[in-house]
Amino acid sequence: MTLEQIGQRAKEAEPALRVMDRRAKDQVLLRAAECLVQNTEMIRKANEADMENGRKRGMKESLLDRLQLTAERIEGMAEGLRQIAKLPDPVGEVIADWTPENGLHIRRMRVPLGVIGIIYEARPNVTADAFGLCFKTGNPVVLRGGSDAIHSNLAIVEVLQKALTDCGCSAYAIQLLEDTSRETAAEFMKLNRYIDVLIPRGSAGLIATVVNQSTIPVIETGSGNCHVYVDEDADLSMAVNIVYNAKTQRIGVCNACESLVVHRKVKDAFLPMLAAKLSEKQVELRGDEAAREAVPSMAAATEEDWGAEYLDYILSVKTVDSVDEAIAHINRYNTGHSEAIVTENQEHAEKFLREVDAAAVYVNASTRFTDGFEFGFGAEIGISTQKLHARGPMGLEALTSYKYEITGNGQTRG
Amino acid sequence: MTLEQIGQRAKEAEPALRVMDRRAKDQVLLRAAECLVQNTEMIRKANEADMENGRKRGMKESLLDRLQLTAERIEGMAEGLRQIAKLPDPVGEVIADWTPENGLHIRRMRVPLGVIGIIYEARPNVTADAFGLCFKTGNPVVLRGGSDAIHSNLAIVEVLQKALTDCGCSAYAIQLLEDTSRETAAEFMKLNRYIDVLIPRGSAGLIATVVNQSTIPVIETGSGNCHVYVDEDADLSMAVNIVYNAKTQRIGVCNACESLVVHRKVKDAFLPMLAAKLSEKQVELRGDEAAREAVPSMAAATEEDWGAEYLDYILSVKTVDSVDEAIAHINRYNTGHSEAIVTENQEHAEKFLREVDAAAVYVNASTRFTDGFEFGFGAEIGISTQKLHARGPMGLEALTSYKYEITGNGQTRG
Repeated sequence: MTLEQIGQRAKEAEPALRVMDRRAKDQVLLRAAECLVQNTEMIRKANEADMENGRKRGMKESLLDRLQLTAERIEGMAEGLRQIAKLPDPVGEVIADWTPENGLHIRRMRVPLGVIGIIYEARPNVTADAFGLCFKTGNPVVLRGGSDAIHSNLAIVEVLQKALTDCGCSAYAIQLLEDTSRETAAEFMKLNRYIDVLIPRGSAGLIATVVNQSTIPVIETGSGNCHVYVDEDADLSMAVNIVYNAKTQRIGVCNACESLVVHRKVKDAFLPMLAAKLSEKQVELRGDEAAREAVPSMAAATEEDWGAEYLDYILSVKTVDSVDEAIAHINRYNTGHSEAIVTENQEHAEKFLREVDAAAVYVNASTRFTDGFEFGFGAEIGISTQKLHARGPMGLEALTSYKYEITGNGQTRG
Repeated sequence: MTLEQIGQRAKEAEPALRVMDRRAKDQVLLRAAECLVQNTEMIRKANEADMENGRKRGMKESLLDRLQLTAERIEGMAEGLRQIAKLPDPVGEVIADWTPENGLHIRRMRVPLGVIGIIYEARPNVTADAFGLCFKTGNPVVLRGGSDAIHSNLAIVEVLQKALTDCGCSAYAIQLLEDTSRETAAEFMKLNRYIDVLIPRGSAGLIATVVNQSTIPVIETGSGNCHVYVDEDADLSMAVNIVYNAKTQRIGVCNACESLVVHRKVKDAFLPMLAAKLSEKQVELRGDEAAREAVPSMAAATEEDWGAEYLDYILSVKTVDSVDEAIAHINRYNTGHSEAIVTENQEHAEKFLREVDAAAVYVNASTRFTDGFEFGFGAEIGISTQKLHARGPMGLEALTSYKYEITGNGQTRG
């Protein structure tokens, strides 16, 4: 099938989805959950082929683990769909309603975004998850997964399409590119006549490629060089807990802390405490001169460290003389994801909240909370680090647009 | 000055603008209005140089008219800034406020979008207008105007920068590319490390170039192939008025009607009435066979006519057998701008409102109302025809994003 045909089929599926009511959509989601569980063996066999290929090519153990689908993980995918079915449907909401001087009755209505493209890497569970979120919001989705997971993805999509047709829906509400070549991916990113928005999920390299090549509007997700700033007026034991949590609770995620900024007045008291705690997890510290005076075993940071997203047991440490200097440093090096201050000083807290330019800015809490579930959205398609359309954790609402429905009685413009 | 420097200067201007309060911003806008009027002579002289060049190159009379700045038009630009000063400032609004189970207090705050790039063509009044809207919402703006208006634009920007520094603000809240070459424009569209969003204002060709080349998130504006559908249950004299208004009230605008869709049951009664009315303005009709049976003088439409945005005294006419066929035709050929149905049938009206995919969908009113002022927004930076971020007329709110401000008491993630 050509990309042109895939695009046309997605567009064909769109009108019915656009007006489908919540009950019909939830029925499909529950049926899809059921089908996934019923087809556990088939999906596991397909996944075994991917695992086999991965092993042959010497894939790292951690990646093989991400790739693997056990019965439990397939049940997890099904449970994800059941959870999405329970969430309210944002489509159809009247966002605003007014009558200007011309007498027209204007209603701003929440509607689906259109056809959504998603480009992602290894994890096959994204396949079911992305379908659930896009379908619940009335959007056909075209997926381009990685070649490593192609057999698993094809099996999952086959099951989901079966659930769709069982319920009388177009199977083209979800499509997967079978060809996982780079050339086809590059062509896919130019399908702006069929695809309304493209969401890349994966490494910084993947996201940069999509931003540079796509003619489809893109929502950038994921890259996170997150800081915790320990202020001169911080509760230092709270600060140790927050930095320890933000750095080590889960190491490979975009909301993990990569850089510590510390006020000069407290660095000698704070840094040795923190270093002792972080040594439990063998975290490597890389600091500026002032930080290394406080912890002599610390390595010297280079300019690159300030901009690095390590996704590893490494933390850079920058010393500053004021909250203003901390804010300037963070605004220079951050990726617009999540930033935290630890302080008991209300004025510093307010200043930090207002002036730091990021999707989520915290006072006295770990950066690890930037997440659709923690925010109470019930689901998440990713975390946006751009300012257009959606910022921060994206729940169902981020997969919608709006339109104006306007009713008159013959008005013409004078 | 290099583009790199321009980008850096815009970024330098950003932090102060981000937190500037409404009073300070309005003061700058009023001072800018004052300076424009005071410098009328200087601006007119610069404009005369552009007019002279235009005449030498044989510029069309209609374009020369758009280019010309009279004292009255300069006063109009100043009045535009005064009006923007009167509008409420959306920045700082608490959009939502809640506490999920983790006990964090989350506030979703409206914030500026960031650095905005605008690429536009002939009219120099856009320069002051774009500045006013971007400044009011706390966004530095970088403008790339057309070479035809370069002297006028430079003069206006000089005046606006003087007003900024008079008020103690950074002059770099507005910058203009002095180099209007295509090569520099192409480079400008790749400045995504400095510019957060790019808005093209102008011809379909300009917009397509920006969509294809930009690595900066783009808001597509303007292109409008708008339809009026006259239903079998229409009040035909209302329909004549609406089509006449939508087609001829202003011919070169994006919300003008380009195509009429008419139900077969009423075409013989309706089309001759409409043709008689449109003949007052010498509108050329191009129809399908059934339409031509009703009005034999009508030219034959080709496939190209269904997709054409004429911006001229031409109207295509398509006959359909049902509201469903009308909706399918419109969804196939429209550009997502403005679409209208004329009907007394509530069921058809509801169906049309719900199923037509466009920014603004009308029942019994002219498409010409799609406009920020008519909608009561008090200002407009353009009309978005995409679904991401903003759709339809974009007022001040469309130039904002949001961030999450989160306050805890030491929370860490388990």
